[in-house]
Amino acid sequence: MKIAMDFTVLKRDGQSRSGLLTLGRGDVHTPAFMPVGTNATVKAMSPDELQEMGAEIILGNTYHLYLRPGPEVVRSVGGLHRFMHWDRPILTDSGGFQVFSLSSLRRIEENGVHFRSHIDGSLHFVGPTEAMEIQAILGSDIAMAFDECTPYPATYEYALRSLKLTTAWARKCREYRLNAQVLFGIVQGSTFSELRKMSVEQLLEIGFDGYAVGGLSVGEPKELMHGMISLVGPLLPEDKPRYLMGIGDLADVLVAVEAGFDMFDCVMPTRNARNGTLFTNAGRISIKRTEFKFDERPLDPECQCSTCRNYSRAYLRHLFLTREILSMRLNSIHNLYFYLEFFRRMRAAINSGSFLEFKKSCAGILWKEAML
Amino acid sequence: MKIAMDFTVLKRDGQSRSGLLTLGRGDVHTPAFMPVGTNATVKAMSPDELQEMGAEIILGNTYHLYLRPGPEVVRSVGGLHRFMHWDRPILTDSGGFQVFSLSSLRRIEENGVHFRSHIDGSLHFVGPTEAMEIQAILGSDIAMAFDECTPYPATYEYALRSLKLTTAWARKCREYRLNAQVLFGIVQGSTFSELRKMSVEQLLEIGFDGYAVGGLSVGEPKELMHGMISLVGPLLPEDKPRYLMGIGDLADVLVAVEAGFDMFDCVMPTRNARNGTLFTNAGRISIKRTEFKFDERPLDPECQCSTCRNYSRAYLRHLFLTREILSMRLNSIHNLYFYLEFFRRMRAAINSGSFLEFKKSCAGILWKEAML
Repeated sequence: MKIAMDFTVLKRDGQSRSGLLTLGRGDVHTPAFMPVGTNATVKAMSPDELQEMGAEIILGNTYHLYLRPGPEVVRSVGGLHRFMHWDRPILTDSGGFQVFSLSSLRRIEENGVHFRSHIDGSLHFVGPTEAMEIQAILGSDIAMAFDECTPYPATYEYALRSLKLTTAWARKCREYRLNAQVLFGIVQGSTFSELRKMSVEQLLEIGFDGYAVGGLSVGEPKELMHGMISLVGPLLPEDKPRYLMGIGDLADVLVAVEAGFDMFDCVMPTRNARNGTLFTNAGRISIKRTEFKFDERPLDPECQCSTCRNYSRAYLRHLFLTREILSMRLNSIHNLYFYLEFFRRMRAAINSGSFLEFKKSCAGILWKEAML
Repeated sequence: MKIAMDFTVLKRDGQSRSGLLTLGRGDVHTPAFMPVGTNATVKAMSPDELQEMGAEIILGNTYHLYLRPGPEVVRSVGGLHRFMHWDRPILTDSGGFQVFSLSSLRRIEENGVHFRSHIDGSLHFVGPTEAMEIQAILGSDIAMAFDECTPYPATYEYALRSLKLTTAWARKCREYRLNAQVLFGIVQGSTFSELRKMSVEQLLEIGFDGYAVGGLSVGEPKELMHGMISLVGPLLPEDKPRYLMGIGDLADVLVAVEAGFDMFDCVMPTRNARNGTLFTNAGRISIKRTEFKFDERPLDPECQCSTCRNYSRAYLRHLFLTREILSMRLNSIHNLYFYLEFFRRMRAAINSGSFLEFKKSCAGILWKEAML
């Protein structure tokens, strides 16, 4: 296996850019949205459905796959792609975020973290070497460096120490990477501008195939988050993909794309879908609303997804109220399609030099409860 | 709307027969298996998937649809087919079985049954007229007469009284039917041969488009059930479809097809799928078994379903253990395909005059736990 990645910025519009990320398993148009496939499945979706709606890359969670089914299982069936029957690119996170957000115990050492599984309480140790080994076994097209996701709030001192640890781990991951996978480093530094800059500098010195920003949307005020996004985006190399981790509120995505970010992942579309909250071009709606009881119109008349082409609001409401599995399926199809279509439109806007107009046209829609 | 049904027996092999049931919305090859779509959805499945696996007709539950979403909702969106985006035939039961098995209270009067909803305890009344009205609104291709599903055990006296009530209700349904739908009568009579014969005679006198047998598999010993199946099948008219309600254990199906039955419905394939019990040509398996952990083979190497074509046992086990929605989807696809394929093979056996050989070849497989 050789490192197979190419990234070309196709068009710039201010700091925002559209690009093409070429990986061995396929092309990814950026800005790109990556549906989240935690347990080797994007919840409620089949690979065919993801492909049909235009997903070009998905995300796998190393922490979850490490615990279940375990890397030895994925290895025995020939890697994550074959395991889950998805032949397009996969990016795996390093597991750092989940170790810090889901597991208990968590004793941090120089070489990694001891933690207890959130599933059965069993003890585990993962550090940069282990994270890279696991991701190599999973066989993802893009691996992420192992980082400490600095909690919020953190003192300057804690954030500095945490950042230095993340840098040290990133260096170890980079050394391990010699053997193959495309590897992105992760910028930390909490909400301290100085530390974010320091983190970027240290990662650039090590040198990665792409750069991600982590440790945001962990409880800090939106203004601080937007500030960090706008600060860090332009500090990252022009010629490498920039990935804002775990942030998928489309209002935040617009801020980040304006700052030059290229890649995004988030459970929002799928999680909201399962809870009956659906995105439309008129705003958000809760599908259980009584006013949909007799409504034979499609959920979003402007949407071309298979849910909107084939089913009525009345049916979607009925499926949700009867807790049918098809409810979660049809809702997930719609929300994911809505996201992917939003990104397609965003790319088109950048390509035609009208990103700011596009951003402005979204204001007041993304946040509001729709009146349909 | 006019009554549009044609039934042709294509081939006889002993008392078993293969046939073609032609309905306005499509052809149904018999013996036919009807997947159960309780809440206007075959659980975990999309209409496309049902069509792809070769389902020619599905069943809808009048009781469930009456309570949720309610006939007025289905009417407002143009009938059950449009509501659930299924354009092939639908048979609706009359609700009788569920009124007697799911609801509480249940006060039987000459004109119908008062009962409490199993969902919210609300009071309802359904009798033959109401059942026909609801089914007319649903717009099913085949409606069933409203019956009392006689509980087991029942005294002869109770069974006789119950049977007479079922006959009286059947007559009312038949009168109502003047207005359109294809209508099947339901034979009752518990496990009393004499009463079963009486029920058949009374229904024949009224005259229906097809004849169903109800009140079996309600707790009676298998031998009694098989006895009733073998008794009643040959009493039903040769030129009308014969439907054995709610029985889908394939061993029982073989007994019934041997006795000349043509139509079947059962939740077994879908319910078992969701619980991780899968049917294979080598017997039943539980997908959670540890021995499948590293097993990269398809579930059933002889099966052509999309689950077996694309996924490994290791992956199916992983999805089941992580309680992923895709587990219920892929398992349901397999089990339903297995059933539909079993029926295709059964029809082929009848057509080639080898039904009894086919039946014998299944013995010892359908019941056993598979060693894979």
